[in-house]
Amino acid sequence: MTARSSLTVVLAAGEGTRMRSSLPKVLHPVAGQSLLAHVLDAAPHGAGASLAVVVGPDHKAVTEEVRRVRADAATFVQAERLGTAHAVLAAREAIARGADDLLVAFGDTPLISAETFARLRAPLAKGAALAVLGFRAADPTGYGRLLLQGDRLMAIREHADATDEERKVTLCNAGVMAFDGRRALEILDRIGNANSKGEYYLVDAVAIVRKMGLEAVVIETSEDEVRGINNKAQLAEAEAVMQARLRQAALDAGVTLIAPETVYLAADTKFGSDVTIEPFVVIGPGVTIADGAVIHSFSHIVQTSIGRHASIGPYARLRPGTSLGEGVRIGNFVETKAATLEAGVKVNHLSYVGDAHVGANSNLGAGTVTCNYDGFFKHKTLIGEGAFVGTNSSLVAPVKIGNGAYIGSGSVITKDVPDDAMAVERSPQSNREGGAARYREMKLRAKAEKQG
Amino acid sequence: MTARSSLTVVLAAGEGTRMRSSLPKVLHPVAGQSLLAHVLDAAPHGAGASLAVVVGPDHKAVTEEVRRVRADAATFVQAERLGTAHAVLAAREAIARGADDLLVAFGDTPLISAETFARLRAPLAKGAALAVLGFRAADPTGYGRLLLQGDRLMAIREHADATDEERKVTLCNAGVMAFDGRRALEILDRIGNANSKGEYYLVDAVAIVRKMGLEAVVIETSEDEVRGINNKAQLAEAEAVMQARLRQAALDAGVTLIAPETVYLAADTKFGSDVTIEPFVVIGPGVTIADGAVIHSFSHIVQTSIGRHASIGPYARLRPGTSLGEGVRIGNFVETKAATLEAGVKVNHLSYVGDAHVGANSNLGAGTVTCNYDGFFKHKTLIGEGAFVGTNSSLVAPVKIGNGAYIGSGSVITKDVPDDAMAVERSPQSNREGGAARYREMKLRAKAEKQG
Amino acid sequence: MTARSSLTVVLAAGEGTRMRSSLPKVLHPVAGQSLLAHVLDAAPHGAGASLAVVVGPDHKAVTEEVRRVRADAATFVQAERLGTAHAVLAAREAIARGADDLLVAFGDTPLISAETFARLRAPLAKGAALAVLGFRAADPTGYGRLLLQGDRLMAIREHADATDEERKVTLCNAGVMAFDGRRALEILDRIGNANSKGEYYLVDAVAIVRKMGLEAVVIETSEDEVRGINNKAQLAEAEAVMQARLRQAALDAGVTLIAPETVYLAADTKFGSDVTIEPFVVIGPGVTIADGAVIHSFSHIVQTSIGRHASIGPYARLRPGTSLGEGVRIGNFVETKAATLEAGVKVNHLSYVGDAHVGANSNLGAGTVTCNYDGFFKHKTLIGEGAFVGTNSSLVAPVKIGNGAYIGSGSVITKDVPDDAMAVERSPQSNREGGAARYREMKLRAKAEKQG
Repeated sequence: MTARSSLTVVLAAGEGTRMRSSLPKVLHPVAGQSLLAHVLDAAPHGAGASLAVVVGPDHKAVTEEVRRVRADAATFVQAERLGTAHAVLAAREAIARGADDLLVAFGDTPLISAETFARLRAPLAKGAALAVLGFRAADPTGYGRLLLQGDRLMAIREHADATDEERKVTLCNAGVMAFDGRRALEILDRIGNANSKGEYYLVDAVAIVRKMGLEAVVIETSEDEVRGINNKAQLAEAEAVMQARLRQAALDAGVTLIAPETVYLAADTKFGSDVTIEPFVVIGPGVTIADGAVIHSFSHIVQTSIGRHASIGPYARLRPGTSLGEGVRIGNFVETKAATLEAGVKVNHLSYVGDAHVGANSNLGAGTVTCNYDGFFKHKTLIGEGAFVGTNSSLVAPVKIGNGAYIGSGSVITKDVPDDAMAVERSPQSNREGGAARYREMKLRAKAEKQG
Repeated sequence: MTARSSLTVVLAAGEGTRMRSSLPKVLHPVAGQSLLAHVLDAAPHGAGASLAVVVGPDHKAVTEEVRRVRADAATFVQAERLGTAHAVLAAREAIARGADDLLVAFGDTPLISAETFARLRAPLAKGAALAVLGFRAADPTGYGRLLLQGDRLMAIREHADATDEERKVTLCNAGVMAFDGRRALEILDRIGNANSKGEYYLVDAVAIVRKMGLEAVVIETSEDEVRGINNKAQLAEAEAVMQARLRQAALDAGVTLIAPETVYLAADTKFGSDVTIEPFVVIGPGVTIADGAVIHSFSHIVQTSIGRHASIGPYARLRPGTSLGEGVRIGNFVETKAATLEAGVKVNHLSYVGDAHVGANSNLGAGTVTCNYDGFFKHKTLIGEGAFVGTNSSLVAPVKIGNGAYIGSGSVITKDVPDDAMAVERSPQSNREGGAARYREMKLRAKAEKQG
Repeated sequence: MTARSSLTVVLAAGEGTRMRSSLPKVLHPVAGQSLLAHVLDAAPHGAGASLAVVVGPDHKAVTEEVRRVRADAATFVQAERLGTAHAVLAAREAIARGADDLLVAFGDTPLISAETFARLRAPLAKGAALAVLGFRAADPTGYGRLLLQGDRLMAIREHADATDEERKVTLCNAGVMAFDGRRALEILDRIGNANSKGEYYLVDAVAIVRKMGLEAVVIETSEDEVRGINNKAQLAEAEAVMQARLRQAALDAGVTLIAPETVYLAADTKFGSDVTIEPFVVIGPGVTIADGAVIHSFSHIVQTSIGRHASIGPYARLRPGTSLGEGVRIGNFVETKAATLEAGVKVNHLSYVGDAHVGANSNLGAGTVTCNYDGFFKHKTLIGEGAFVGTNSSLVAPVKIGNGAYIGSGSVITKDVPDDAMAVERSPQSNREGGAARYREMKLRAKAEKQG
C-alpha cells in the first residue's frame, strides 16, 4: 500500500443503557482494557494517521480514556443522538482536513483487528469511493443485508425492508466503513433523515455513492470480529473470543498452558521461551514473564515483571510494581506490591512484601510482613543481600535490614539491623509444668457448670 | 388461572443405588441445595397449595429436609417399592382430601420450573382429566413415547413395546403428570400390576383415562428441564444446566461476569446494580451483594451480606454470618466468620476475623488473628471505630479494643484496650553485631562436618 | 490370548522442535506424567513382555525417565534420524532376540491404551504378519490412507501420492504397528530408502509383507487415542482428552464432582467411596483420598494421603509427603509438606506445617508456623496428642511439644515443651492511655507540614 493518510472516526457516543451500568458502555473492559482502547489500538497508527473520537455529552470519563490511550486523538461531542451519519459529522472539522482515507469505526466492537482496517482501506487506493465491512451471519435476522452485483455493492437493505429473496442473503453489514477521503464530506452531507425516526443513517451512503456514479465494494471478515457489545452477555462473549485468541497466540509462541481455557491473559502479556502456566491463573495488564518461568495454579498477577526461571505460586498474588529477578521463588499465600526482589530471593509462604527492596538471595520466612502503612503514611522496607528473616516477623517500615543480617523468628523489627547482625525481639520462653492440665480442668469445670 | 387448589405429590423414595453414595439420592445438592429442595421450591406455593412427599423407609434425613424446606408438607412412607403408581398412592390420605389438581412430580428432577407446573395444570381447568409432561428427546431410545392424535394423548408406549413406526416418535414421557383432582383416586385405583415385574405404573393412567371417555393431553417442555438424576455424571450435568441458568439471569440483571463459565452461583444469590465478579469465584447459599461491589478472583463466599462498593478478594473467604458494610475492603488470604465489619473497614491481607464486630473505618493489618477459640469455648472480639491493629497481632478473645485505639505490630492483646489508647506487647529489639556472621560460620562448620 | 511374548519398541528420538522448548518432546507432561511414561504404562507388562526405547543422541533426560518408569526397559540411541524404520532398527539387538510379537509405538502419543495394544496383537496370534493401527480422521488431509480389500490391508498411501478416489478414504494410518516377531527383522531389513528424502519408512512394510505373500490387517481405534503431539496446542488438547477420561472414571466410581470440568486429576489419583470435590481443584501425582473425604474449592494437592472423612480447604495446599488421618481438618491458606497429621488434627487457618508429626486431636491455631529451616538445615517439629498451639506461634525446629501441651498465642517456642505443660513467650501488654490520640495528632501534623 502507498502511504495514504487516514482519519479514523470512532463512534463512542452510545448510551449503552442495556449494559445496566453507570459506566459508559465503551469503558467496560475486555482482557483488561476498555472496549474503546481495543478499537483505538487497532485503528491505523503512525505518520499520516489521525484519530477522532465522537463522544456523548457528559462523557468526561470517555474523553479521559481517549487521552490516556491515544494522546494524539481529537474528541468531538455529539450533543444530540440523531443517527450514525450525524455522529460521524460531529467530527466534521477533522474530516474537512481531507485525509486520503476516512474510516468509520465503533467504540463497542473491540475484536476488530488492524489487519481488517488495512484490508478495508485497500479498495480506496484502487479507486473505490466506499468500502463496507461485511460478515456472514450465522443467523442474519435483524441485520442489514449487503446486496451485491458481482463484486459491486448495490445496496444495504435493512431487514425490515428486505424481500423474502433478499432475506436469504447471509452477507450482512458490520457498520464499519471506509470512504475516499476527498469525497467523504460530499457523500455524508447528502445523507438525509426522511425516515420514520427522522435520523441520519450511514447505510444510506451506499445508495448515494451509486447515484454519484462511484463504486462501493464489500470487504468480508468473520462475524466474531465485528460483534458489537450491547449487554453484559455480549461483553462476556467478547471476552471469551479475545481470551481464545490470546491463548492460541501464547501456545503458538511455545508457552505451555496445561489447561488453556482456565488461564486469563491480558492483551499485552509478554512471554519468554519455555514458560509454563498451570491451570487457574489470572494475568492482568502489564505483565512480562521471562524464559523458563513457571506460574503455578491459582496465581493472580498484575503489572509485574517476572525474571528468568522464577517460580510463582501456587496462590501468589503479585500486585502492580512487582519486579522479580532471576530464579526468585514466590510461594503460596504470598502478596507483593511495589516490591523489587533481586535474583534468588525466596518468599515461600504466607507473607506480604510491599513497598520494599530485597537484595539477592535473601530468604523471608513464613509469616513475614512488611508493615508499610502506619495508618497515615506508607514507608519503605530495605533488605540487603543474603539476609534471613525468621518466621512471623514484622518489619516496621521505614526500616533497613543489612546484608547478611539474620532476624529471629517472631521479631518485631523497628530499628535498622546492621550488616551481618543478628536481631531478635523476644521474651524468654516460660514452661509452666502441668499448666495445661490445670487449664483444662478449669475449662472443663466451667463447661460442666454451664451445661448443668 | 382461577384459584384452583392443588396437591403436589413428590416421589422421593428411590434408593438411588447408582449414585454410589450413602446419602439418599434426592439429598444430593445442585447449586447449593438438595435436588428435593429445588422441586419443592418449584411446586405450587401459597393458599390452596398443599404438598405431600413420598419417602422410602429409613429415609429420616429426607423427611428432615422436607421439614426444613417446606414445613407445611406432609410426608408418607412407601414401605415397599412397587412402582410409581404405588408410590403416589402412599399419599392416599392427602389425595383423598380432593384438591382440584393433583400434580405428580419427582424428587430427582431439580431443573423443573414453577412455570412448567403452571402450564401443566392449565388443561385441567379446561376439562382435561390428565395432562402429561413431554419433551423432545435428542435420543429417544429407552423412553416411553407419547402417541398423539391431534392434540389428544392416546397412549404412552414403552420403548420395548413400541413398533418401528412408533419408535420414530421423539416426543417422550417426562413422568410428571397432572390429574383432575376429583377423579385422581378413581384413575389411580384402576391401575393394575399385570405386567412382568408385577408393579403399578403411572403410565397406565393414560389408557384408563381414555377408557373412561375422558381427555388426556400433553404439555411439552425442554429435555433439560426434566432430566432425572441417577448417577454422579447426571448430577454434574444438572449442576451445569443450573449454573448456566443462574449466570444468564445474572448477566441479564446487569452483573458483569468477566468469565461466566468460571463463576459458581447459588440459586438464591442476590445482586445489586453494577456488581462485578472476576473469574474463578464460588458463591454458596445465602449471599447478597449490594450495588457496585466487586468480587475479585478466587473468592469463596457463603451466607454473607456484602455492602455497597465493597471490594472482596482476590482470595477472600467469607464464611457464614459475615456482614460487610459499605466500602469495606477484604483483601487476599483473609477469612471472616460470624463477623460484622462496619462501613469502611479494611482487612487487606492474611487475617482471620471470626466471632467479631469491627467498628467503622478500622484497619486490621496483615496477619491479624482473632483468637476466638480457647480449646473449649468460643469468645468474641469487639473492635471500636477508627481503630488500627498492627501486623501479626493476636487479639485473644474475649477482648475489647476501644474506638481509635492503636495496637502495635506483633502484639498479643489479652486485656481490653481503652478508647484512644496505644497498646503494645513487645520486648526490646536486640541487635547482636556480627551475630549472623558467627551463626553462619557455625552452621557452615556443621555442614562440613556432616558431609565428611 | 495365549501367553505370547512381546517386545515393544517405543520411538522417542524425535527432536520436537515445534514444541519450542529445551525439554525433549516426550518429557512434556500430561495429567502429571510425561508423554513417554503414559506410553510405557500402556505397553504390555509382566512376564514375557520386554521394552526397548529408542532415544535421540544427547537425550540423557529421556533415558533417565525410561529408567524411572520402567527399570526393565532397554534404551537404544538413534545416532542419525533417517526415518521411522531406521529408528526401529536402532533396537535391532532387542528385536533379534525374537519375541513372538513386535510392537512399534510412539513416545508422543500418550492417549493410547493397553487394551488397544492387546487388540493390535490379536491378529498376529491368528497368523497375520502385520497389524496396523488405523483411525477415522475427521479431516484426513495429510494422513496416509489405509487401502483395504475386504479385511486385508493392501497399501498405505501417503496423502501426496493418493488419487482423488483414494483421498476420499477416511481410514488413516496411526503409525503404531504390530509385527509377527519371527519375521519382523526380515521385513524391516527389506525397507529401502529410495525416496525423495532418502529415508527408511515403516509404512513401506505393508507392501513388503504383501510381496512376501503374507497378510496385513488393520485394527481401528478412535482418533483421540492416537493423537500425536507436536506443539503446545496439541499438548493442551491431549491434556483435555486425558482429563475428560479421568473425570468420567471418577464420576463412574461415584465421586461427586460438582463441576467436573474444573477439577484436574492425575492418572494415578485414587478415590474411596462418597468422596466430594468442589470446583477449582488441582490434584497432582500420588494422591489417595479415602472414603467420605471432602476437598473444598481452590485446593492444590500433590503426593498426599487423605484419611477418611477428612475436610480439606478451601485454599489448602498439600505438598509431597503429607499424610492426614481420619477426620483431619485442613482449612484455608494452610500449607503442609512432609507432615503426618494423626486422626482428628485441626489446622484451620493461615498455617505452615512442614517436616512435622502432629499427634491425634491436636489443634494448631491460625498463623502457626513450623520453622523448619534455619537457613542451612531442615529440622523436625514433633507435636504430641491433644496439644493446643495458640495463634501466630512459631515452633522453631528441632522442637518437641508434649502431649496435652498448651502454647500461648504469639509465642516463639525454641525449647521443648513437656507433656501437659503450658508454654508462653510473651511480654506484658502495656496500654498507654491516650497514646493513640497523641500518635494521630503527631501524624496529622506531619501530614499537614508535608502538604503545606
